[in-house]
Amino acid sequence: MSTFRELGKSLSNWGRWGNADEIGTLNLVGPEQLRAAAQTVSSGEAVSLGLPLDAHGPQPGQHQGTERYNPIHLVTEKGYAPEYRGDICVADDHISMPLQAATQFDALAHISYDGQMYNGFSNRSVTWKGAEFCGIDKVSAGVAGRGVLLDVARHHGLETLPPDHVISSAELDAVVAQQGVSVEPGDILVIRTGWVERFKAGLSVGEFWAASPGLSLESATWLREHDVAAVCADNNSVEAMSSLPDGPVSPSDPEQAWVFHMVTIRDMGLTLGELFDLEELGAACARDGRYEFFFSAPNLRVAGGLGAPLNPLALR
Amino acid sequence: MSTFRELGKSLSNWGRWGNADEIGTLNLVGPEQLRAAAQTVSSGEAVSLGLPLDAHGPQPGQHQGTERYNPIHLVTEKGYAPEYRGDICVADDHISMPLQAATQFDALAHISYDGQMYNGFSNRSVTWKGAEFCGIDKVSAGVAGRGVLLDVARHHGLETLPPDHVISSAELDAVVAQQGVSVEPGDILVIRTGWVERFKAGLSVGEFWAASPGLSLESATWLREHDVAAVCADNNSVEAMSSLPDGPVSPSDPEQAWVFHMVTIRDMGLTLGELFDLEELGAACARDGRYEFFFSAPNLRVAGGLGAPLNPLALR
Amino acid sequence: MSTFRELGKSLSNWGRWGNADEIGTLNLVGPEQLRAAAQTVSSGEAVSLGLPLDAHGPQPGQHQGTERYNPIHLVTEKGYAPEYRGDICVADDHISMPLQAATQFDALAHISYDGQMYNGFSNRSVTWKGAEFCGIDKVSAGVAGRGVLLDVARHHGLETLPPDHVISSAELDAVVAQQGVSVEPGDILVIRTGWVERFKAGLSVGEFWAASPGLSLESATWLREHDVAAVCADNNSVEAMSSLPDGPVSPSDPEQAWVFHMVTIRDMGLTLGELFDLEELGAACARDGRYEFFFSAPNLRVAGGLGAPLNPLALR
Amino acid sequence: MSTFRELGKSLSNWGRWGNADEIGTLNLVGPEQLRAAAQTVSSGEAVSLGLPLDAHGPQPGQHQGTERYNPIHLVTEKGYAPEYRGDICVADDHISMPLQAATQFDALAHISYDGQMYNGFSNRSVTWKGAEFCGIDKVSAGVAGRGVLLDVARHHGLETLPPDHVISSAELDAVVAQQGVSVEPGDILVIRTGWVERFKAGLSVGEFWAASPGLSLESATWLREHDVAAVCADNNSVEAMSSLPDGPVSPSDPEQAWVFHMVTIRDMGLTLGELFDLEELGAACARDGRYEFFFSAPNLRVAGGLGAPLNPLALR
Repeated sequence: MSTFRELGKSLSNWGRWGNADEIGTLNLVGPEQLRAAAQTVSSGEAVSLGLPLDAHGPQPGQHQGTERYNPIHLVTEKGYAPEYRGDICVADDHISMPLQAATQFDALAHISYDGQMYNGFSNRSVTWKGAEFCGIDKVSAGVAGRGVLLDVARHHGLETLPPDHVISSAELDAVVAQQGVSVEPGDILVIRTGWVERFKAGLSVGEFWAASPGLSLESATWLREHDVAAVCADNNSVEAMSSLPDGPVSPSDPEQAWVFHMVTIRDMGLTLGELFDLEELGAACARDGRYEFFFSAPNLRVAGGLGAPLNPLALR
Repeated sequence: MSTFRELGKSLSNWGRWGNADEIGTLNLVGPEQLRAAAQTVSSGEAVSLGLPLDAHGPQPGQHQGTERYNPIHLVTEKGYAPEYRGDICVADDHISMPLQAATQFDALAHISYDGQMYNGFSNRSVTWKGAEFCGIDKVSAGVAGRGVLLDVARHHGLETLPPDHVISSAELDAVVAQQGVSVEPGDILVIRTGWVERFKAGLSVGEFWAASPGLSLESATWLREHDVAAVCADNNSVEAMSSLPDGPVSPSDPEQAWVFHMVTIRDMGLTLGELFDLEELGAACARDGRYEFFFSAPNLRVAGGLGAPLNPLALR
Repeated sequence: MSTFRELGKSLSNWGRWGNADEIGTLNLVGPEQLRAAAQTVSSGEAVSLGLPLDAHGPQPGQHQGTERYNPIHLVTEKGYAPEYRGDICVADDHISMPLQAATQFDALAHISYDGQMYNGFSNRSVTWKGAEFCGIDKVSAGVAGRGVLLDVARHHGLETLPPDHVISSAELDAVVAQQGVSVEPGDILVIRTGWVERFKAGLSVGEFWAASPGLSLESATWLREHDVAAVCADNNSVEAMSSLPDGPVSPSDPEQAWVFHMVTIRDMGLTLGELFDLEELGAACARDGRYEFFFSAPNLRVAGGLGAPLNPLALR
Repeated sequence: MSTFRELGKSLSNWGRWGNADEIGTLNLVGPEQLRAAAQTVSSGEAVSLGLPLDAHGPQPGQHQGTERYNPIHLVTEKGYAPEYRGDICVADDHISMPLQAATQFDALAHISYDGQMYNGFSNRSVTWKGAEFCGIDKVSAGVAGRGVLLDVARHHGLETLPPDHVISSAELDAVVAQQGVSVEPGDILVIRTGWVERFKAGLSVGEFWAASPGLSLESATWLREHDVAAVCADNNSVEAMSSLPDGPVSPSDPEQAWVFHMVTIRDMGLTLGELFDLEELGAACARDGRYEFFFSAPNLRVAGGLGAPLNPLALR
């Protein structure tokens, strides 16, 4: 297999939408795709694909040596506030959280190599002020279009793929065939591994991060060929991940972590959605055999954000 | 006019959807409404109705004597992280914010009087743990359905309604007639005053909060009669607001603040959306004369939240 | 034994330093006491009595159902910042923490009963703006004076008192006698139980909070008779604590939690210092038999704070 | 004048206290100095040199393009908490703040150039985990010793030095002579410019940061010759600062910002204390002509901190 650099170069979308482009493959969803996507709504269900924001999320936190912790929610005012006239009781609250803590989109500025981000922007443009280029705020209306669920776990008759399962292109083809769906340019691909469900069912945070099933580096080629607009999954990082004692590595390249991230985000300009919860959607699709839906996922508009939390919806 | 307590009692939805109900008028949007709403998408535009989250938002902050401040965004990691193998540069970030800081839904637990919240839940159930009942997490898939823009500012030929403008029921009827739309049960009403646009155009934070145009207390009856599912507006608080030196009052009842909030949220169980940005939507609707759209507004799923930020969309 | 209310009334210091007083027994440390305290410095050692602020502290955090979590420390800027001229690399950082997370003083506004705080101030004066009266900012130069260590654990020949050990007045007398010290009006009493050391040695956070050795309710009388200015201890709450499944109770009154807090803080106006680390001080005092020292403990001047973190020193 | 690099090399303390040393000139305060310092306490006054932590501090905040904002203080619990038994009302609170927001010590890891920090540690050792070397936690008992106030403003008969005033070595000698004090090895020098007082008196935040009086680069030689242990001042940055529209520069080297910081912190290993409030201390010293005192300044023990807030005391 070629190195991730060679693969990245061969799949690159740099310049495809102009040298100033900051949103990459999201350019593939235009008015026509959006209109067609809305037509897929038939049973009138709105299914949330987002994890709750609370202290019980999947982040190990600083005591486990990562800067990512679960959201901290503080009620900051409650009472018959003296500055209000009359008979009123108001309650306010506050949140502190890493933007990467729960269900989220990675901004294209989130990861880079050799000093460059997607479309050649310098990674020096990310400062304490946030991302000058390719920040999540450039995705101002979020990701909306036709979503397609590929339920890889169900395809294998499993509740959850095992942690060392690396999803190949051939496997994606097999799921597509079995489900009887097509994947079209501009689609938002939603990959179900069952891994987040397993965490919800009691897997420890440590085990959740030690390794997870996910896409292979090689599947990036498949994604490029199908020209999908975004890929979301119910695992840690969309891509398969495993860890050595001194940190994460990629099953696709044990000398290197996050190779899929680097090729898809930095070279292809592909938006990734992580830590999705696909339990309810998976069950609904299996029930009626409809795997396409209207995907509406407007992220918070964090100025210069390197990612943003959101509550993505499947409207079906 | 009756007192707000009398009005609240006459418009009450307590028990209408059972004694355990925690989402109020959102019960009015069912599968049929959602499916019909999706059919309104015709030009394939996705319009964000959310303010950016940054330091330049409308909150005065603690130095001005309010607990609400603008979001603080911190880049917390950037660099070739030593714990990652290989040639990778990752950037992460973090946000701290009041959940009421920018474009938001109020949870039904946000406001109460006489010790009770919507549907009779005790306001003692709001503790430092958040809202046990009627929290924003009960609105797990956000608000989705048929949105109708009532552009009150344009109706008057104004860019912005003056700060002392109190919108009456008769005025809502006039806008409906002029725009040629209907308002049906389960619709999400979006009221444009132009006030947030004026802030964006340079109005000071102090002036923004001193008074704002908005709905009258009396309009609550109109909302109840039309059985709308939610009301959102591009002002501070949906309702008209004015302030005396010692705090806010309601133009509808100068002895009392937030009377519309109390009747709509607490008695009717109506979800309010505040600090929306309707500049782009208003222009788009005026351009082609279509004032209905698919409203998709999935709030963050903050467990026990008294409100939640979001990036609402009009899909048209 | 009398109820805590009766005891509180009998030990009350309300009005003793005027009706406007907000610092209680800290009035007992005047210039004379401070000057004398400085004279106790003889070996020239500065011993920190503060816990480090990090993710490994004693707080269970929100996932364990308490609003108190360990400090979160974020590095927010590092790099050759573009807005600086020249060859400079600056690193900044940020902290979020409950003021009660680690070594701390309780403000007199921290606890109240029957609607009143120390000296009769209404507990309604604590709002989202903080404490209008009796906030920690009223202790602007912290607590400085003659410190006396009473090493109760060593007195019993133990490394750590058992979690159900409730320290009586008679026991304090015995330690005073054994150590050959006197306790004078205006002294700062430092009580060593060994409990924080046991946490540092590996006791789980759950066990740390389930119960802890500490002062009895009855010892409040002893503290009042000796007119100490403040009491600090290396346990959770100065007072002995035990827990039932549904929350903490006081060994001195199993119907009631925090009875010692209520009598000492609210009735006596006594400043309490919690979560001190007395490992090094205990060893130093045992080594040379000197149990008095210059206690210098300037808390952060948090405006309206209900407590404040600090790094207390024993200068000996 | 030599470049800052040449000056830094000539004043360097690298290796002076061993190659593993992480606290630099604080090594100059030993038991003898501490004991002697305690003897200077004569009138029994404790004077706080710290600014209050509130929303009215000197930080411009993110809306002015800096990552430093004033502390945010949130009351997070107040009420008769349901999980406590009995008649108790507890109030807790929370703070979020940049460690550089108010009165603070810079850690030696705070600034570097040419890839190296004090004593040759690599600046790559500062990661999102904080400072592995030379963090503020290495100063575990804070800075305690003999303090000497040099009241430069009063020396000139001014309330505040003008913003373009750059304090020279000759000037320090003149103040020493006029005040009749000596500066000895291991002393903590406290420089009064009046600049923070001017902010407290109403100077705008913008003017406060546009330029400030302070020490010259050349004075680093004087500090090295006198072998002081630390230098604190009532201005932004100890050193004189001025700004061009695109960022700060140093009056001592207009091509370069923070030259004094780089030479003192990085080359000399000198601890700097910033944003001190010397109003009360200046008045007290002027009143009785005693300019020496016991300086007790225990910073918060932030693990890996690049600085830490504190409430420094002058005990006199």
